[in-house]
Amino acid sequence: MVGITNYLRVANLACRKAFAVLAAIFLLLPTAFSHAAQDEHPPGITSSTNVILFIGDGMDEHQITMARNYLYGADGAFAMEQMPVRSSVRVHTLREDNPNQLRYVADSANTASTLATGLLTSKGRIATSAARDADQKTILEAAQKKGYRTGLVSTASLTDATPAAFAAHTSHRNCQSTKSMSAINHAVGKTQQCVPDLKAHGGPGSIAEQLATANIDVLLGGGMAFFNQPVEGSAQDLPSILDMALNHGHLMVKNEAELNAEKLQVAPATSKLLGLFAPIHLPVEWQGEQLRLAELMTTNKHSKAIFPTPFGCEKNPHHQGIPTLANMTGRALQVLSHNNNQGFFLMVEGASIDKQAHIRNPCGQIGELRAFDQAVTLGRQFAQQYPNTLIIVTADHGQAGQIVPLPETYQAASKAMRMAQYPTGHYAVLKTLSGELMAVNYSTNSSPQGLWEMHTGTNVPAYMEGPGLDEIPALIDQRDINQLMRHHLKLD
Amino acid sequence: MVGITNYLRVANLACRKAFAVLAAIFLLLPTAFSHAAQDEHPPGITSSTNVILFIGDGMDEHQITMARNYLYGADGAFAMEQMPVRSSVRVHTLREDNPNQLRYVADSANTASTLATGLLTSKGRIATSAARDADQKTILEAAQKKGYRTGLVSTASLTDATPAAFAAHTSHRNCQSTKSMSAINHAVGKTQQCVPDLKAHGGPGSIAEQLATANIDVLLGGGMAFFNQPVEGSAQDLPSILDMALNHGHLMVKNEAELNAEKLQVAPATSKLLGLFAPIHLPVEWQGEQLRLAELMTTNKHSKAIFPTPFGCEKNPHHQGIPTLANMTGRALQVLSHNNNQGFFLMVEGASIDKQAHIRNPCGQIGELRAFDQAVTLGRQFAQQYPNTLIIVTADHGQAGQIVPLPETYQAASKAMRMAQYPTGHYAVLKTLSGELMAVNYSTNSSPQGLWEMHTGTNVPAYMEGPGLDEIPALIDQRDINQLMRHHLKLD
Repeated sequence: MVGITNYLRVANLACRKAFAVLAAIFLLLPTAFSHAAQDEHPPGITSSTNVILFIGDGMDEHQITMARNYLYGADGAFAMEQMPVRSSVRVHTLREDNPNQLRYVADSANTASTLATGLLTSKGRIATSAARDADQKTILEAAQKKGYRTGLVSTASLTDATPAAFAAHTSHRNCQSTKSMSAINHAVGKTQQCVPDLKAHGGPGSIAEQLATANIDVLLGGGMAFFNQPVEGSAQDLPSILDMALNHGHLMVKNEAELNAEKLQVAPATSKLLGLFAPIHLPVEWQGEQLRLAELMTTNKHSKAIFPTPFGCEKNPHHQGIPTLANMTGRALQVLSHNNNQGFFLMVEGASIDKQAHIRNPCGQIGELRAFDQAVTLGRQFAQQYPNTLIIVTADHGQAGQIVPLPETYQAASKAMRMAQYPTGHYAVLKTLSGELMAVNYSTNSSPQGLWEMHTGTNVPAYMEGPGLDEIPALIDQRDINQLMRHHLKLD
Repeated sequence: MVGITNYLRVANLACRKAFAVLAAIFLLLPTAFSHAAQDEHPPGITSSTNVILFIGDGMDEHQITMARNYLYGADGAFAMEQMPVRSSVRVHTLREDNPNQLRYVADSANTASTLATGLLTSKGRIATSAARDADQKTILEAAQKKGYRTGLVSTASLTDATPAAFAAHTSHRNCQSTKSMSAINHAVGKTQQCVPDLKAHGGPGSIAEQLATANIDVLLGGGMAFFNQPVEGSAQDLPSILDMALNHGHLMVKNEAELNAEKLQVAPATSKLLGLFAPIHLPVEWQGEQLRLAELMTTNKHSKAIFPTPFGCEKNPHHQGIPTLANMTGRALQVLSHNNNQGFFLMVEGASIDKQAHIRNPCGQIGELRAFDQAVTLGRQFAQQYPNTLIIVTADHGQAGQIVPLPETYQAASKAMRMAQYPTGHYAVLKTLSGELMAVNYSTNSSPQGLWEMHTGTNVPAYMEGPGLDEIPALIDQRDINQLMRHHLKLD
């Protein structure tokens, strides 16, 4: 199966780029967008100026390799990896206690803020500056001012750090609803408490309220539990934040069927689309057989390591009825591009690549990366018809998973050294789709519960496609990504 | 210090490529090559066709980020990262017991073999095929046949896997000398025993003997202990393999002063350069203050984690008198390019990035990455004068080190969860050169000794510069690197 020699590889190499583009056009064209593409767009409007930013949360090179190996084997490639430009992206995180110094491990809040604003900040912050707590203007806000339509799509709650950072401003990601803002949060310092962000104290209010009134054309994700909470200061707990969103012209959908309904007509002049498909985060697409996760390595009474048996991945039945990320992306592109001369800014987040790595669930992580890449495929198809579309696919920070040797390697080493050898941390042996074995280890936290695995500080990739990318250096940082997008939309 | 806003960043972005090239020309020009460049090369010969392959052993994106943060901070960049083309490289490893299936963690032997031959093989093998043990022709051998000069430079023993794979063929990397080949090796299977590779059994003999007689113009590295061993079958232990090399026209140098001596004249028609600067591997350039390594995390009697105190890196005094990798590279380029119309193939390995990661020595690893990048800088300077030079900088496989949160993050999590939280494995907190803190964790092996940390299975980067790189995809594999080099040298 792995071709042993092929002296034509150099020729192949030069052709792959062309092949990748063709493959992207013909493969995996989901219904929502194919309708949009074929029926609804007069050729004149395909000249609109668009940016689609895909954020794979926690999707560093190691997590990508793990998912690629599982899904497509060592010769495989994700659609995003076939995009023509690839840079390595440095991640910056300021210290809240001293913003002149850096930390070298980020979180989704400060990195999404940097992607959204082009400015640096500290962990936990949502588009506000480290220590000083000044609002930082986002690309979504700047795009709106210039008449672009805007959209946020995520497999997380829409109030979660990544989507929030594009349209809200709070001192901490935890300021998701009035309730979560009202008490002192002992896990964060004085300067990042949510209390001052309450409207009662002259602040902008909760993330959910800010999103509900931000005039965003498309909001698709989870978070019903936050939107169902009362607007700050409302009597009798009414109106809810959801009521507030509906009053601001949002049409509401809450499952796959409603999202895909032919009759759903969103007319941007008067209406906007709000999809809330889960109380908090959307269920993930895949799970381990028998719900297996990576397991804490232990030794038996003879001090020999007990290695877990191999397992594969399967569909998560709880994802039934929930739209896929590609499905949401397709509908968002349709609504944003319909009769739109100007163009749009759309952010699409694959949130649970990160969340599943935190809980040491390799199958969850792999399934979400697969779903994310399918959404990217859709974006690439869109860009074929709307050539003035800039697509950037990147991650916010690194995650914990590592591909490590198989048990047989540790067993041989144990024998040679006469001492048990095994990976520290939580270990899983996966049966890949092509029937091979791949072992994965998570070892950034001893805790069996709570925060679980930690983020890591590696550079992350950025895959890019579209106009204006001829001179992109091989090494950039997250501020550059913001500037590339602003430049394409002619903002500032 | 970290500029908060800079709306001129887009403009900067487009300029950086040009700046990087200029920076490479003017910075860090070591003596050996500057002599060569200024005095000895008539312009006519700068049209020679050259390939320089730099292999950073174990140098994945995470190890690069760690070293970059330590040395240059979050805004820094290595010279290699400023090269114009960057791809992500898939790493293939066949199973010796079933070459139709793959493993997802490699070693330096099989990956160097793939870079050298363009063919896949199994762990431990030196340019021979998995299971079948057929010799695989290397690019160095093909280049020699076409009249190119050749060179191998490494901070490891020249008989170590990476340099060996370019000019020797054995069933296992351990076949370094007759002595190591003569007994059954219980750590490897039947098909990878060295005994059949002995000349007495019709084999090619040890790696050291093969290198000594391979007519390589420049061999610089460690391994005196192997070269000082008797030639297989020699009476009275004489001649030694070193004698054999001298008989094959090698001039011998054994320290920095001899390597850099003005009077050293290597005339390729009649003589070749052999530098052996250490019994086995060269001492590394840097070490931790007080020789500190990453430390195994433990808890105190109250079940609280005991975090190690921060430390910085310092020069290793044992590197005194040993040439740097840049020094060796400069001399190699001088010898290979002197009066050479045809051109050359040179492989330069930064071997101890990997070796220091194995022993959980972050300072060792960072110092070696720094030294490697200085050698790359020299290669890039050379290419400015010899424009038909293709430079590829890549790694063979991933390593174990991860940048993880600082103790304060684990301590806050421990408090919030009322349970000790700390990274499993060996942990270090480094004081970076700019005075910030960065934490590093190694956790792929429980063993306090022996094999120590394991390789990991992530993709690795390839940085490229030179002619013919216009259509390189963002995702390639190690066979493609071989084919790019062959294509440039017009081999096959």
